[in-house]
Amino acid sequence: MSLLVMKFGGTSVADLDRIRNAAEKVRREVMRGHEVIVIVSAMSGKTNELVGWVEATSHLYDAREYDAVVASGENVTAGLMALTLQQMDVPARSWQGWQVPIQTTSAHSSARFIDIPRANLDAKFAEGFRVAVVAGFQGVSAEGRITTLGRGGSDTTAVAFAAAFGAQRCDIYTDVDGVYTTDPRICAKARRLDTIAFEEMLELASLGAKVLQTRSVELAMRYKVRLRVLSSFEDTDDRSGTLVCDEEDIMESRAVSGVAYSRDEAKLTLVSVEDRPGIAAAIFGPLAGAGVNVDMIVQNISEKDYEGHTVAVTDMTFSCPVNQVARARKALEDAQASGVIAYDDLVVDTEVAKVSVVGIGMRSHAGVAAQMFSALAAENINIKVITTSEIKISVLIDRKYMELAVQALHDAFELDKAT
Amino acid sequence: MSLLVMKFGGTSVADLDRIRNAAEKVRREVMRGHEVIVIVSAMSGKTNELVGWVEATSHLYDAREYDAVVASGENVTAGLMALTLQQMDVPARSWQGWQVPIQTTSAHSSARFIDIPRANLDAKFAEGFRVAVVAGFQGVSAEGRITTLGRGGSDTTAVAFAAAFGAQRCDIYTDVDGVYTTDPRICAKARRLDTIAFEEMLELASLGAKVLQTRSVELAMRYKVRLRVLSSFEDTDDRSGTLVCDEEDIMESRAVSGVAYSRDEAKLTLVSVEDRPGIAAAIFGPLAGAGVNVDMIVQNISEKDYEGHTVAVTDMTFSCPVNQVARARKALEDAQASGVIAYDDLVVDTEVAKVSVVGIGMRSHAGVAAQMFSALAAENINIKVITTSEIKISVLIDRKYMELAVQALHDAFELDKAT
Repeated sequence: MSLLVMKFGGTSVADLDRIRNAAEKVRREVMRGHEVIVIVSAMSGKTNELVGWVEATSHLYDAREYDAVVASGENVTAGLMALTLQQMDVPARSWQGWQVPIQTTSAHSSARFIDIPRANLDAKFAEGFRVAVVAGFQGVSAEGRITTLGRGGSDTTAVAFAAAFGAQRCDIYTDVDGVYTTDPRICAKARRLDTIAFEEMLELASLGAKVLQTRSVELAMRYKVRLRVLSSFEDTDDRSGTLVCDEEDIMESRAVSGVAYSRDEAKLTLVSVEDRPGIAAAIFGPLAGAGVNVDMIVQNISEKDYEGHTVAVTDMTFSCPVNQVARARKALEDAQASGVIAYDDLVVDTEVAKVSVVGIGMRSHAGVAAQMFSALAAENINIKVITTSEIKISVLIDRKYMELAVQALHDAFELDKAT
Repeated sequence: MSLLVMKFGGTSVADLDRIRNAAEKVRREVMRGHEVIVIVSAMSGKTNELVGWVEATSHLYDAREYDAVVASGENVTAGLMALTLQQMDVPARSWQGWQVPIQTTSAHSSARFIDIPRANLDAKFAEGFRVAVVAGFQGVSAEGRITTLGRGGSDTTAVAFAAAFGAQRCDIYTDVDGVYTTDPRICAKARRLDTIAFEEMLELASLGAKVLQTRSVELAMRYKVRLRVLSSFEDTDDRSGTLVCDEEDIMESRAVSGVAYSRDEAKLTLVSVEDRPGIAAAIFGPLAGAGVNVDMIVQNISEKDYEGHTVAVTDMTFSCPVNQVARARKALEDAQASGVIAYDDLVVDTEVAKVSVVGIGMRSHAGVAAQMFSALAAENINIKVITTSEIKISVLIDRKYMELAVQALHDAFELDKAT
C-alpha cells in the first residue's frame, strides 16, 4: 500500500466546515487505497492569539514555555481532524509531537529535526488505522520539553514525514492552486506551472513567492520528496496543482520558468571606500552585527587622486529591505567613526525594487541575460544593479517600473504559453 | 522547606491580568519560604469552546480525541502562568500531564489517577525551581494517550498532588471566599465557616453547594489533605477562607454546620405495589437502567383486600431530578407492561424541593431532627418525605416554601453566630 503525506495549512482548517472539507480530501485518497499521514496547522488566527498572550507576559520570554503554549494550537486541529475522519468511517487517530515522537534539537522556537522514528505510526497502520493525523510545527527535545520549528514549520513537518516514511508524494494544500509563473495580481497573463524544479522553487520562495517555506523545499530537495502544491478549496485530482520535483523529472526545459519580484528594497552605496584586502569584511561585518539582511552586493574598483597620491578606491553598493536602512546607516556611520572603514559618502536610494527571472534552463540556454536586458530597455527601464546566479538573474530598478518590468519579462520569455 | 499546592480555577485565570493576580499570590507564598505546586484550569470559556468543537464533529465522538483536544486548554494556562512567574523572578516551569507523568486509567474523559511519581518534579525542585505549574484535569494512560478526569478534575488534580507530595496544605482559589452555612443569595444571614469537616463538605457538595468537586473532597478525606477554599479576588492570608479538614482538627462541635437545598426535585409514588421480596430491586433496577438518579427512597407497608384475600401492599415513594421524571415514568410503565412489577397508580409531584441540615455534631447532639421539624412546623411547612443519615437530615417540601425553610432552619440552629 502506498503512503501519501497531505498537509493542510491554517486557512484550510480555519473552522469545522473547512476541516470537514479537508477531511473529505483525505477520505478520497484513502478510498483510492492510500495510507495517509495528515499534517495540520493550527486553525488560522489561533497561533497569533497564543503568541499574543505569550508576548504580553514579557518581551524576554522563556522560549520553552512559548513553545509549550503555542504548540497547543496544532494539537487541537489534529484531534478535530481525527474526529472528523472517524465520522466519515475512516480509521484515524491524532498524534502530538511527543507521541510520535518527533525528535528535535533543543533550539526552542527554531528547532530542527533529529529523527522521526517510524515504529509507533507503523504499528498503528499495521493495526488497521488508515490515517495518522500529526500536529505540525512541533516536536520534543531530548529533555522531554515541547519544541516548535518556527513559523511555517508545518510544511517542513510534512516533508520530513514524507522523507521518513518514503511517501509516494507530499501534497501541500493551501489557499492558492499552485505555483505561478509570476504574481497574478501584477500580471494577468500569469500561468500556473505543472512542474517546477526544487532549485527554481527555492529561488522563487526566497524572492517572495510565499507558497512554500524555504526550509521545506530544501528538505524536499535533499531527500527527493515529490512535493505538490494545490488548493484546499477546489476539487482536485492527481493532476491538480504544481509538482515541485527533481530537475530530472521535468521533461520540458525552458530557459525561464518564472519572474519574481521584491518590492520594498533599498540600494545603499558607499562612495570612495579605500580598496584594501579585508575591506568587504570590514563593511559587512558591522552590518551583519546590526541584523541587516544584505542581499545583492556589487563592487566597482577605480582610482582616485588623494593629496597628490593615486589610491585604489571602490564604490561598494548593496541592497537590503527598506525598513532596515536606518539600522544599516547607523552601523556604517559607527564603523567610520571608530576608524574601521573610511568612505566619502553614503548614498541611499529607498525607491527601488528587485525583479528576477528564474529557470534551471538557463544553464543550457545562452543569452538569457541579454534577452532580459533588452526587454527592459525596450520599456526604457534603467537597470541600477545586476547580480546573477546559475539559475537566476536579478536587477534592481526604480520601484515605479516594477509591475511594468514583471509584465515585460513575462511576455519576453513567453511564460503565458505552456511548453 | 514545606510544600504548598495552590489551585486556580478558570475564572481565576480568565485573562492575563487575572493570571498575573494569581501569580502574585504564588510569589507571596514563595517569599514565605514555600515550594509551590500550582494547578491551573483552562482560561474560562476555553474548555467550552473546545468541547463545542468536538461535539460539533459528532455526537458519538472518540473520547481519546476529545481528551487530546480539550486538555490543550490547561496546557496554555500552565505555560502562561510559568512565564508570568518567571517575569516576577520566580524560578518556575510548566508541566503537562505526560511530562510529570500523571499516570491515569484509560477511562477517557473520566480517568482516575493511578500514580503521580515524584521524581521529575523533585529533581527540578532540587535544581532550584521554586514552582511547578501543572496543567490540571489531565493525565496520560499506559498507552501514551492523553486522558482527562472529567469536569472539575482540576480540584482533584490539586488534591492528588498534595497527597503525593505530602503538601502542608492544598489551597483552592476560586470566585467565592469560602464555604457558607447556606447560600447567601437565599439567606442574608449566611456566614462563612472557618472550618468544616470532610464529611460535612461531602454532604454539602452533593446537595448542591458547588464550591468543590465531590471527588476532590473524597480524595482529600482519604489522604487527610488539609484543603482550603479561598478567593482569588481578595487579599488573602493564612487565616482566609474555609479550611476543610479532618473531624479531629475541628475544635467546635455544633450540631448543625450548614443548611443545603436542591430546588428542582420531583417526588414519585407507586401506589399499592405488591409487597414481596425483591420488589425494590424490581422497581429500581429499571430506573437505574434508564439513567434516573434516584435520591430519597421511602416505603410504607400496609394491607389491602384483594378479591377476598388480604395481601401485603406497599406505597413506594422516591425522588429524582425534575428533568428525569419522563424517563422514570416510561421505565416504570414499561416494567408494569412487561409484568416485572404491578401497581395501582403512579402519583407524580414535580413541585417539590429538598432541604437538608448537615453536621458532624449530630452524632453527639440528640434531638436535632425534632428541632428541625418544629422549626418547619412553626412556619406551617408540610413535610412530604424524610430521610436521615448519620450527619444529615433531609426533607422534601413544597418548592414554594424552600427559601422560607432554609431561612427558618438557619435561624433555628443559630448558624449566623460563630461558635
